[in-house]
Amino acid sequence: MNNQLYKGKEKTVFAVAGDESKVQVLFRDDISAFHGVKRATLPGKGKINCSVCALIFKELERAGVKTHFIEQDKECTSLICRHAKSIPLQIFVRNCFSGSTAAMLGVADMTPTPNTIVELHLKKEELDYPLINEHLAVGLGLINYDEAKKMLDTSLKVNEILSNLFKKVGIELIDIRLEFGRLDDGSFVLIDEISPDNMRLEDIATGERLDKDRFRYDLGHICEYYQVVLDKLNSLNS
Amino acid sequence: MNNQLYKGKEKTVFAVAGDESKVQVLFRDDISAFHGVKRATLPGKGKINCSVCALIFKELERAGVKTHFIEQDKECTSLICRHAKSIPLQIFVRNCFSGSTAAMLGVADMTPTPNTIVELHLKKEELDYPLINEHLAVGLGLINYDEAKKMLDTSLKVNEILSNLFKKVGIELIDIRLEFGRLDDGSFVLIDEISPDNMRLEDIATGERLDKDRFRYDLGHICEYYQVVLDKLNSLNS
Repeated sequence: MNNQLYKGKEKTVFAVAGDESKVQVLFRDDISAFHGVKRATLPGKGKINCSVCALIFKELERAGVKTHFIEQDKECTSLICRHAKSIPLQIFVRNCFSGSTAAMLGVADMTPTPNTIVELHLKKEELDYPLINEHLAVGLGLINYDEAKKMLDTSLKVNEILSNLFKKVGIELIDIRLEFGRLDDGSFVLIDEISPDNMRLEDIATGERLDKDRFRYDLGHICEYYQVVLDKLNSLNS
Repeated sequence: MNNQLYKGKEKTVFAVAGDESKVQVLFRDDISAFHGVKRATLPGKGKINCSVCALIFKELERAGVKTHFIEQDKECTSLICRHAKSIPLQIFVRNCFSGSTAAMLGVADMTPTPNTIVELHLKKEELDYPLINEHLAVGLGLINYDEAKKMLDTSLKVNEILSNLFKKVGIELIDIRLEFGRLDDGSFVLIDEISPDNMRLEDIATGERLDKDRFRYDLGHICEYYQVVLDKLNSLNS
């Protein structure tokens, strides 16, 4: 068994024996919202999200976005990834005023915007993941201005690629949360996961939500709707 | 008497009879902090701040920054300004992690930064003047991206000009809050005031604070220290 390096709320990261350049990211069945206040275990969720994530990372790599993804394991619950040092920032790309941003601005959730919203947040739970900006990230010594621009530009590109991908299968990408890490050579890669746990997705035909808001707001049938996302994405390759 | 157009916490704006292109901005002796929760009246404060503000706007105009300032009245408590439509944004320029930003990041007030921090805030008291960014300001329809860049660049320029000005008289500019407005021709000007009420200032020799934090944190002798700022700036022209 590989040694555990880190256990998050929904994933566990293990060392890969004999190869320090790789890690194994296990997608557990745990789900968590509101900064860990609401938690549950949903049998099968880990496998679905791991498969969605593998599929999306492959698509992004094909489109020229560098990610930490190498391959999915046979059981479909883990990804083998390049080892990257996490940068404690989160980038949110929103195609409308959604979630916490709508609340902060005092507007209704899903209020349309004429532009794409990009936000830099500090990944620090005890501070409630505050919205910051590139000056503050640089001031904190987390990145330099060139890296900030690259992260924000890459995030916009990811949003565009995935918006188009999802549109092909009748899903609208409402927003997405991204994280980046540094490889040993200093270069940036997209890390963490991309799944219904960190995207908001709407079924265009039915208006139904296919993401973690089903858990946050007790809409039910969480895994069934996550599976819809996976099935629709898989239909593209069949 | 001119007609009152707007009464804020510390200033009152009047129409100028017979000239719609101008307004009269009266600096009252009122002072307010913590979003209006703490209030007082300090005899003489209005006149001091009005005079500091006139002097600073003249200096900025000389350096090529467009402001709404035309002239100070004879009683030294009002400015005659060009009428400009206020944009509900505030720009903070910080030369260290100061005030609410230090608190948000969980670092000590006045923590040094390697860079200059620029922040865009939404001027909406009921939302607690939240930190936003240019995408959100554009999304809200307040400005376009070109205007956002111009506002942020101008704010950095103002900070540089005033940091140098204050350094000449032994004062360090810690941070400054700026507001912009649109003239009838659509062009941008710096509006509102620039005074010890919206800058943090430190006497380099003594380490004493010369700004509204004296009121916020009950350091006393508020007007005396505001007067020091005025006297020091006046000494440059004598």
